[in-house]
Amino acid sequence: MPKARLKIIPLGGLSEIGKNMMALEYQNDIIVIDAGLMFPEEEMLGIDLVIPDISYLVENRDKVRGIVLTHGHEDHIGALPYLLPQLNVPVYATKLTVGLVSVKLKERKAFSGAKLKTVSFGEKVSLGQFRVEFFPVCHSIPDSAGLIIQTPIGTVIHSGDFKLDYTPVCGEPTALSRLAQLGGQGVLLLLSDSTYAELPGYTPSESVVGETLDRVIAEAPGRVIVTTFSSLVSRIQQVIDSAAKYGRRVFIVGRSMSDTVHMAIELGYLHAPEGVLARLDELRGLPHNKIIFVTTGSQGEPTSALVRIANQDHPQLHIIRGDTVVISASPIPGNEGLINKTVDTLFKQGAQVLYNKVAPVHVHGHAAQEELKLMLSLIKPKFFVPVHGEYRHLSFHGTLAELVGIPKENIFVLEDGDVLELNQQSGKKTGKITYSNVYVDGLSVGDIGSVVLRDRKMLSKDGIVMVIIAINQQTGKLVGRPDIVSRGFVDTTESSEMIEASRDLVAKVLDHGGARPADWSYINTKIRDTLNKYYYDQTRRRPMVLPFMVKV
Amino acid sequence: MPKARLKIIPLGGLSEIGKNMMALEYQNDIIVIDAGLMFPEEEMLGIDLVIPDISYLVENRDKVRGIVLTHGHEDHIGALPYLLPQLNVPVYATKLTVGLVSVKLKERKAFSGAKLKTVSFGEKVSLGQFRVEFFPVCHSIPDSAGLIIQTPIGTVIHSGDFKLDYTPVCGEPTALSRLAQLGGQGVLLLLSDSTYAELPGYTPSESVVGETLDRVIAEAPGRVIVTTFSSLVSRIQQVIDSAAKYGRRVFIVGRSMSDTVHMAIELGYLHAPEGVLARLDELRGLPHNKIIFVTTGSQGEPTSALVRIANQDHPQLHIIRGDTVVISASPIPGNEGLINKTVDTLFKQGAQVLYNKVAPVHVHGHAAQEELKLMLSLIKPKFFVPVHGEYRHLSFHGTLAELVGIPKENIFVLEDGDVLELNQQSGKKTGKITYSNVYVDGLSVGDIGSVVLRDRKMLSKDGIVMVIIAINQQTGKLVGRPDIVSRGFVDTTESSEMIEASRDLVAKVLDHGGARPADWSYINTKIRDTLNKYYYDQTRRRPMVLPFMVKV
Repeated sequence: MPKARLKIIPLGGLSEIGKNMMALEYQNDIIVIDAGLMFPEEEMLGIDLVIPDISYLVENRDKVRGIVLTHGHEDHIGALPYLLPQLNVPVYATKLTVGLVSVKLKERKAFSGAKLKTVSFGEKVSLGQFRVEFFPVCHSIPDSAGLIIQTPIGTVIHSGDFKLDYTPVCGEPTALSRLAQLGGQGVLLLLSDSTYAELPGYTPSESVVGETLDRVIAEAPGRVIVTTFSSLVSRIQQVIDSAAKYGRRVFIVGRSMSDTVHMAIELGYLHAPEGVLARLDELRGLPHNKIIFVTTGSQGEPTSALVRIANQDHPQLHIIRGDTVVISASPIPGNEGLINKTVDTLFKQGAQVLYNKVAPVHVHGHAAQEELKLMLSLIKPKFFVPVHGEYRHLSFHGTLAELVGIPKENIFVLEDGDVLELNQQSGKKTGKITYSNVYVDGLSVGDIGSVVLRDRKMLSKDGIVMVIIAINQQTGKLVGRPDIVSRGFVDTTESSEMIEASRDLVAKVLDHGGARPADWSYINTKIRDTLNKYYYDQTRRRPMVLPFMVKV
Repeated sequence: MPKARLKIIPLGGLSEIGKNMMALEYQNDIIVIDAGLMFPEEEMLGIDLVIPDISYLVENRDKVRGIVLTHGHEDHIGALPYLLPQLNVPVYATKLTVGLVSVKLKERKAFSGAKLKTVSFGEKVSLGQFRVEFFPVCHSIPDSAGLIIQTPIGTVIHSGDFKLDYTPVCGEPTALSRLAQLGGQGVLLLLSDSTYAELPGYTPSESVVGETLDRVIAEAPGRVIVTTFSSLVSRIQQVIDSAAKYGRRVFIVGRSMSDTVHMAIELGYLHAPEGVLARLDELRGLPHNKIIFVTTGSQGEPTSALVRIANQDHPQLHIIRGDTVVISASPIPGNEGLINKTVDTLFKQGAQVLYNKVAPVHVHGHAAQEELKLMLSLIKPKFFVPVHGEYRHLSFHGTLAELVGIPKENIFVLEDGDVLELNQQSGKKTGKITYSNVYVDGLSVGDIGSVVLRDRKMLSKDGIVMVIIAINQQTGKLVGRPDIVSRGFVDTTESSEMIEASRDLVAKVLDHGGARPADWSYINTKIRDTLNKYYYDQTRRRPMVLPFMVKV
């Protein structure tokens, strides 16, 4: 009897910071891997978040056996508070990831009925005809997992986000020998992280950063302020270790940093020798060279502790000449401007600032080309699908797979919503499900469409001009002078003459309007055409012109 | 008799791409160095350009002896069309720079009476008590100059934008021995380019890129599309040279690229062997591996040739599977998103894309730390002012100067509008002139202030809601139902119920308005408060609420 085909459907993840999600489907069973969110791109004006479109999963709700999470970063778990109310299935993850998801669900008061299941490395979970085993990988958050998924037609390996770090600071190295062993037995499909597939060579070990941090902390003449991602527990561990070594005390600043540090200590992912961590009220009287602050703000977020400190807007802390600030993170694409501004502000106040461009104070958590090739070579999958990254990253990863000997026809670069079907012999893109970005703006999920975004774009560029006219219901004639109000278009004082002139222009147009002055759509168009042209001639700007009629 | 003090006043330049401009003032003479523009930052919504504030120069117009330009990039000459009408003084520059300024003035039909003077390297120009000599420096545009400025109290050297390239592709290497000789004689002040002062080491020679381009052009299986800055003449020269070597023909695509290439050939800065350059109508029938296109679009500009080709929106050209696209430029900060999108689109259509992250296809035109130290060491100035760059770059450059032995008290990191006064013994910041960014938006220069920008920001985030109410003049009572129109706030179909409910809410508030219903400012505030709260509760969004009253 010919076996059924395995379907692979990416539901997100074509972006560096991108709402990673994927469905695997076999007959009546679907499992979902990750449920991430994406921060909006520049042109998504006013949007808070972007999440995956799960219409396909909702339509096939009775098939969905569970959601499996690889690790606790926002781009892998952040959409859960929005999706779980629609798709209440069990969620499987390692201990820290479950902890982070719980915090997130509680914060958003999103969903109290979530079925969160903690899974250990090596444990196997049966989800319909799928059997899922978690294995450890190194990444920039502890407890990161890859997945070994047994399916009726063969083994699927999902790398999660990973790098190869033989000297990790927290947790175990990526489980290479287990993967090599599976490779020897035959692997049907590898799904592997492409985020850094552009970069030649190897990604350095986390411990490299420790050496730099240690030197900085040893040599800094005054206070040291280290900012990083709150989830980058290994980085915080290294700061604590150096602090202990040089007799400095560590002050954790900012709520989200405090929350994560406390959870990580409680769960045993972070270790602080007695007396190293301190509360802000213990600051007074401590010599400057005995002080380290650990704060959020590595992305220049306006409400973060570091940015408030830089802007002299923090209730307790401000920069003192001689402070050393270490930005131990790399910019998430799009945040460069905010970060640069923060660095400039810190320099102006007399701080010395160290960041990735000028000193090795950060390494990222993704495999570069040689590591990706090693992974491909150990696992030797029959089929390969690059995941996690923009199209160019997936393309480069596809090329790497070709280089190590996977036949071109077995490599599939997919886009969100593509359906890839595999049997043991061959694979084929067989279609595309309906898929689009889902925008979260305030309380609403999915109500913002292209019209609203187009309007916001137009408003942001040249503002708006409202024209209010009163028309006599009986005669259809204009009553009084048209009124004009603008916002974001011109300086209303300096341009008052032009605005007055345009009121007269509208009056004139309506007077000579001819044919059907009572026909609102005609009047509306007439006013807009006239003012669009007039304002463009006068200013070379194109505000949104919005006429409004009051019948009196 | 004690000599007067020399004043140094930066009027722009605190940005990587930044409207560089500076004034030197001695008694009754002012000379201006450069007159650049800046492209708007993300939060400057709808702004086309930012130019320097020249109020100080306009106030002291009778002192200004001339504008001296170092080279022809936008951030050094782009503000001239806006400033010359206000400040009609002679402009001095080398031949290509004068050519580019003429084109720019003609394009903008800005100013026909400009007094442009071409100056050769080594030639000396007297401007009041200043004597200015141009010397050659290497940068990413030919005919780049540094300035040796003799003043009554000593020699000032301005580096222009420069790097040290001992094997430049066009023009002469930076005039190091001349500078060393001046250093021996004593230099009062060095003003030096800080753009890449963050980067350790040396900037590679332009000829390094030539080797990569040559290999790409030799090995590409099909057509090659090279995109770069149109002013990067040396890059275009290297493409033409390799094309000639491998029997490919070069098609220049796009108006601005064609214009610059033709001017550069005419003025003798670019050399093409007979038969290498071709017109688009000669394309037909040519084998793909005999074709090179040179286009604009290296910054992902939506109207550029490359982006239109990528978006299948170019009248003559589209991507063919097997094309090799070389983006021979680095992203100007802020353009990363547009460029990445273009690269992804090209990959999706089957092109191979090479860019700076994956292959050495670009070097920039600014000195890195070792070169900056060499410059400081040769010139050995008494005083040092880092120029060209954001505050962090200037700070790093200041630190480099300290390292090579310039006393800290003789190094001045200035901000726009600062006034530094020097005599032969000491220097001091003595004040600050009025200085602010000047925004160009359409035809207007300087009319956009903080209110308009704040409104645009608010509109871009959550849109606008207009409320129109009719009030009976006699009774002061509401006539009919309030009207509400929104743009960029919510999907008006999906949210029609909420909008209807908010109309009723306004009516209710006005009915119960109490005290002084005829007082418009009271009504206005009341409506805004009510709707702000209601909409925020319903949506967590904060649209601009704009009530409008018609008296009937």
